[in-house]
Amino acid sequence: MRERAKRAIAECRRIAEFTEEPGRTTRRYLTEPTRAVHELLRGRMESLGMTVRVDPVGNLHGLWQPANSCGKRLLIGSHIDTVPNAGAFDGVLGVALALEWVGIAQELGLKLDIELVAFSEEEGVRFNLPYIGSRAVAGDFDLAWLALKDADGITLESAIRGFGLDPALIGEAAFDASTIGYIEPHIEQGPVLEAENLSVAVVTAIVGQTRMSVRFAGQANHAGTTPMRMRHDSLAGAADWIATVEAMALRTDGLVATVGKIENQPNVGNVVSAASRMSLDVRHGEDSVRKAAVAALLKQAEEIAERRGLKVEQMLLSEQTAAPMDARLTDFMAEAIRAAALSVKRMTSGAGHDAVVMAARVPSAMLFVRSPGGISHHPAESVREEDIAASLEVARCFLERLGREFR
Amino acid sequence: MRERAKRAIAECRRIAEFTEEPGRTTRRYLTEPTRAVHELLRGRMESLGMTVRVDPVGNLHGLWQPANSCGKRLLIGSHIDTVPNAGAFDGVLGVALALEWVGIAQELGLKLDIELVAFSEEEGVRFNLPYIGSRAVAGDFDLAWLALKDADGITLESAIRGFGLDPALIGEAAFDASTIGYIEPHIEQGPVLEAENLSVAVVTAIVGQTRMSVRFAGQANHAGTTPMRMRHDSLAGAADWIATVEAMALRTDGLVATVGKIENQPNVGNVVSAASRMSLDVRHGEDSVRKAAVAALLKQAEEIAERRGLKVEQMLLSEQTAAPMDARLTDFMAEAIRAAALSVKRMTSGAGHDAVVMAARVPSAMLFVRSPGGISHHPAESVREEDIAASLEVARCFLERLGREFR
Repeated sequence: MRERAKRAIAECRRIAEFTEEPGRTTRRYLTEPTRAVHELLRGRMESLGMTVRVDPVGNLHGLWQPANSCGKRLLIGSHIDTVPNAGAFDGVLGVALALEWVGIAQELGLKLDIELVAFSEEEGVRFNLPYIGSRAVAGDFDLAWLALKDADGITLESAIRGFGLDPALIGEAAFDASTIGYIEPHIEQGPVLEAENLSVAVVTAIVGQTRMSVRFAGQANHAGTTPMRMRHDSLAGAADWIATVEAMALRTDGLVATVGKIENQPNVGNVVSAASRMSLDVRHGEDSVRKAAVAALLKQAEEIAERRGLKVEQMLLSEQTAAPMDARLTDFMAEAIRAAALSVKRMTSGAGHDAVVMAARVPSAMLFVRSPGGISHHPAESVREEDIAASLEVARCFLERLGREFR
Repeated sequence: MRERAKRAIAECRRIAEFTEEPGRTTRRYLTEPTRAVHELLRGRMESLGMTVRVDPVGNLHGLWQPANSCGKRLLIGSHIDTVPNAGAFDGVLGVALALEWVGIAQELGLKLDIELVAFSEEEGVRFNLPYIGSRAVAGDFDLAWLALKDADGITLESAIRGFGLDPALIGEAAFDASTIGYIEPHIEQGPVLEAENLSVAVVTAIVGQTRMSVRFAGQANHAGTTPMRMRHDSLAGAADWIATVEAMALRTDGLVATVGKIENQPNVGNVVSAASRMSLDVRHGEDSVRKAAVAALLKQAEEIAERRGLKVEQMLLSEQTAAPMDARLTDFMAEAIRAAALSVKRMTSGAGHDAVVMAARVPSAMLFVRSPGGISHHPAESVREEDIAASLEVARCFLERLGREFR
């Protein structure tokens, strides 16, 4: 597995060199570097005996069908687009590992077909819409999106045509009816595995998320002549509420709640603040927990406003339900982790992945690999070779287990 | 007194029309409208039998010397420059009232000389330096200031010359050795008298002020993948501290403490904050109380940083000591308020005035008049005629009391 791990890491590093911007890795959906990545991956897939195609939204698929196939198919993949100034492993690692999974399946003589999919668009950087690739594979592509424009005014439709593809055929991207599951190996992009000194974890759910804007309005006043008890200080109210948000998350297992943005007015040192607008980002693996937390936080905002003689306005910006992973595949993955002589860690994913989209249509599971320093979406993003090797030992155990189901 | 009050208010309204900007009142130091105000006031002074001069920094002085003068002199005044888009009463009211004080003194046959001074510059708008007028009268003018430039690159020296004055003679602005006190009537510019339904108050001190910048530095992290207990959230630390500042001021009599400005980084809704910089403005009539409060707040910032794994940086921006008013003149004023059949309210001034500068050199007292709505530095700034009349009844009682001291 050490050799496989070295190869997967080297592949990620090589792919990071295919970029739109010299000196840093930026690879948006359907840009020229994507074509180069496809060529590189096509070579690897063909040398594994896989049949390769690019589907009409630009996902690269490689299909391995063993001679004695049971006729069922396992999807394995992740995405190859990146954020601007990205690291080498977000998404790409899942594709590089999938190639090794195919090799392991071949060694095991697994009777399942394996389809490797390198999703073309997960980050949503180019058209401000994430998961374009996986939505097409899941059969959830909305044709209205073809009119979306990127920053240069190019429509999604022209971008697809410019890549030599035919948007009229998007239905052909959809997963095959024989598919029994989707597996996505991915870096954790957080600090939990490092803190617990673990190589891998199995993901139980990708969290749901509520994003809101909350604004307190008070009254601007002279900071020298207005006694404390006669103030309606929106920033003091905001501070109260930020503390409330943090306290709520600290006492609710698995909840993260963040005020990351504040805009204050008039924002002058000697003037009591008149208006303070804050962001709120709340995430949890169970939608009921997240919704209860959001409702309680909004109630507390109202109480703070009432107590301080402020007005409060709330605006819902977006809401996304949690995506639970498939219980059976997740249990198989946990068994595989144990079989690989590792501690079984189950955790939610706080970030979104193609598995959010796939899980709605296909039984899905994710395997997280430790992110050193918790760093992601940054050139310093990295992986440890021993963790990658451990994840491949888990892959072997998982595929063996699956092989007992599909003979 | 009603007639005097009506006249003083009308005078303020008339002076507000002398402006650099059509449709709103803006009268910076030594601009053309200042000359027009001088002409108007010169007429009023001369009709009261006063000797009028403009000193070398542009203060307008009118001297009333009764035939049977005891040879001692009382200074009464305030400023005639304004902030941009000002109201009609800040500063100007003190000058308009001083004219009435002279009239009252004449009616009383007071044997004191009275020098009315309309300070040319208190707000500091033009040269970013407040109190230029009163510093010259107090004998504290620093000749280095002559090199200061306004926004158009005009030096203070050229501005003085351009107004037809000679900066070489600035020493002549200084108060006469016979001066026994300085009185400044002024609008409160705050909500306290309105809240207590009082017309006037005597000022015990002009508060000292500390202005600082406090910055927490933590670590930017993904708002989805970073568990609450693994964060170093600078904004959550800032919220803690803002609450601490407010609590400290609420439990310390007479203290005002304000965080009016916050700058947060990266200030993005789905990123845990990496750095948060706040302003701090602390004011109190006693320097020891202010200093103890600032020290305690900085210690609390360090404790918050320690507890949260943040770094804290503090920068002192400015510190101004409190200016206590003269105890004897202040007591005379309180007696006068009582003699005028009004409730005696003693209070600090949270805003700065020419009396800050004068009090260091001459026994000084201030009489506050209610500010409706607490509004100042705004076109909606106003006064109530009955409060002005009450303040003039206080003036009569005060001058009578002073007359018993100086026969």
